[in-house]
Amino acid sequence: MATYGLIEYDQASPEVRAVYDDIMATRNTDWINNFWKAIAHDPVTLKRTWESIKEIMRPGALDPLTKEMIYVAVSATNGCGYCVASHTASARKAGMTQEMFAELMAVAGMANETNRLANGYQVETDERFRTS
Amino acid sequence: MATYGLIEYDQASPEVRAVYDDIMATRNTDWINNFWKAIAHDPVTLKRTWESIKEIMRPGALDPLTKEMIYVAVSATNGCGYCVASHTASARKAGMTQEMFAELMAVAGMANETNRLANGYQVETDERFRTS
Amino acid sequence: MATYGLIEYDQASPEVRAVYDDIMATRNTDWINNFWKAIAHDPVTLKRTWESIKEIMRPGALDPLTKEMIYVAVSATNGCGYCVASHTASARKAGMTQEMFAELMAVAGMANETNRLANGYQVETDERFRTS
Amino acid sequence: MATYGLIEYDQASPEVRAVYDDIMATRNTDWINNFWKAIAHDPVTLKRTWESIKEIMRPGALDPLTKEMIYVAVSATNGCGYCVASHTASARKAGMTQEMFAELMAVAGMANETNRLANGYQVETDERFRTS
Amino acid sequence: MATYGLIEYDQASPEVRAVYDDIMATRNTDWINNFWKAIAHDPVTLKRTWESIKEIMRPGALDPLTKEMIYVAVSATNGCGYCVASHTASARKAGMTQEMFAELMAVAGMANETNRLANGYQVETDERFRTS
Amino acid sequence: MATYGLIEYDQASPEVRAVYDDIMATRNTDWINNFWKAIAHDPVTLKRTWESIKEIMRPGALDPLTKEMIYVAVSATNGCGYCVASHTASARKAGMTQEMFAELMAVAGMANETNRLANGYQVETDERFRTS
Repeated sequence: MATYGLIEYDQASPEVRAVYDDIMATRNTDWINNFWKAIAHDPVTLKRTWESIKEIMRPGALDPLTKEMIYVAVSATNGCGYCVASHTASARKAGMTQEMFAELMAVAGMANETNRLANGYQVETDERFRTS
Repeated sequence: MATYGLIEYDQASPEVRAVYDDIMATRNTDWINNFWKAIAHDPVTLKRTWESIKEIMRPGALDPLTKEMIYVAVSATNGCGYCVASHTASARKAGMTQEMFAELMAVAGMANETNRLANGYQVETDERFRTS
Repeated sequence: MATYGLIEYDQASPEVRAVYDDIMATRNTDWINNFWKAIAHDPVTLKRTWESIKEIMRPGALDPLTKEMIYVAVSATNGCGYCVASHTASARKAGMTQEMFAELMAVAGMANETNRLANGYQVETDERFRTS
Repeated sequence: MATYGLIEYDQASPEVRAVYDDIMATRNTDWINNFWKAIAHDPVTLKRTWESIKEIMRPGALDPLTKEMIYVAVSATNGCGYCVASHTASARKAGMTQEMFAELMAVAGMANETNRLANGYQVETDERFRTS
Repeated sequence: MATYGLIEYDQASPEVRAVYDDIMATRNTDWINNFWKAIAHDPVTLKRTWESIKEIMRPGALDPLTKEMIYVAVSATNGCGYCVASHTASARKAGMTQEMFAELMAVAGMANETNRLANGYQVETDERFRTS
Repeated sequence: MATYGLIEYDQASPEVRAVYDDIMATRNTDWINNFWKAIAHDPVTLKRTWESIKEIMRPGALDPLTKEMIYVAVSATNGCGYCVASHTASARKAGMTQEMFAELMAVAGMANETNRLANGYQVETDERFRTS
């Protein structure tokens, strides 16, 4: 259960509704997922977060699918169940196949392992990496 | 300083040297970075880790550049300084431009922010994400 | 389900019951939440943890509400669902309004984002911060 | 060393310089810390991050000092050395005394401890916390 | 619900079935837990992960019980609910008593607390630790 | 540099000196490491932390070496450089051989990898683990 409940479209203030409308138009859907309905209790954060996400996830030097997969890798690393579920759904919608998901997980898992080996063995950064 | 010092090629046992040779051949370089020289005190872990990395990072459903960028995103999330430095160098060698790096960081940063908003607002996973 | 089940007041040993009594007296309530009933299997940890919490959370240079909000920010960062739920309840009881919660989450989310940008961009600490 | 070096005011493009000017004016200082000079390689992220920070850290339901202390607690939890150093400096400038810092650390440390006890003992969330 | 559902023994391909057979034989059980059935969608990761686990968890300089307890400590630190549940079960099967579990949690909890105190107080590593 | 500098024995107040004396007596050494000198600015936290550590790390159902190794595994997972360095030194003093350290790191690294695979594949906890 979200801390303060979820704000549905019908109950929403005009400023919240404007963000909801933009989310649905941008994503070409008629549906708002719980994350937005929860943070809608704070319209300033709702608007800033949505506009940041929209700016960051649009096609650029990286395509939207790659960006969604990075989002999944970070969310799995942080153990955020909601975020893994929602961004895995987004990544699949953007074209992630089962094979791509499997490799994504393999890389993310391995990175988590070697990050700790580097920490535990107290490995000093190579001079070449400092000056490259 | 690595916990037990670094094992240079000249001091290495034949089994360690075989891994070093494979690393250099696979990466088309004449250089071994500190991570491998540190974990070489444990030849079993050295061999297993290198063979896992080699299997995981080879071209597949995802290209090597995408894989290196995922590695950087995870390492920045975990705050592993060594891993950020080494995999940023690898990603640049694999073709990551400054623009790609900037977008990678923007996505990874945003994912870390929204992961915590989802946690803090105690957002429940949407039914649609459970059944998709 | 807690690893070893929950120890209710009626089943508790005298030393566990003494801690439960002190928790209820200090908090002016007739209720013990699951966290304490779970760690009560280890009376030494129960007593030490409760006494540490009591010492740390009492009014001092920081007021109890500020302390509860810091607890929530850390728990959301760590993704501990139980801790977010229990300390959000405590913070609200101590006077946290919806507006305060919203700003708390905004700051905690932003800190998690910029923490990773600083890691990923490998930003060196400014000389002024070292000597201040 | 930052990944792509630091962009000093004199080398900066007009759009970056405009952000730098706003940072210095808002903070009433003539100095830009390394974080901004590092992410200035990506003017879009620079502008978005600064404007988000400015919006979030301004006085509201929580005062700026409380917000800086929350920033420090999150940064210490994440182990971001740069962020601990810079936000501890900001918090002290905003009025954090040594006693307040000591209590801040005590709470943040304790939260990290009990977060893990709750995880390890697999404590289930109390019904009262779900419905409050 | 696992992302792609669970692969039961009857539906499994011969290569997946071979890994399942080895898991059951090694663990002297007739049962496969969900983790393996979920990652079986990626037979390469399934095989590599199982063989790594088997190599790492076998008796060596550390006994299997100590290894399982380290696994639990890491999993509680990372907040991975599945991993805490499964490795706590393994550790108990390997001989972990309630008293050992309690001390394990006390140490893991304390380590998480002092880790953050060291970060927050920005404690520099002692010269003696660098050269030891 | 520690946030408020280090408090040496000669400058210490009687209550801080009493803790320093107990640390040296308990550890049979004439030396205090930086962690204690940094948190000594807060004598209440110094005393509580030292007494908690002393209680937790004493021989019990787990021996001191096992406890130090768990401390190292948690610290490497959290990426706390100071804590890895100091507790690796303590573990070696308590009898940890190079082989034991290597296995400790292998287990901790693997746990970090599979923790993220479990998160990413959204593996549901087996019924058997819930009721065991």
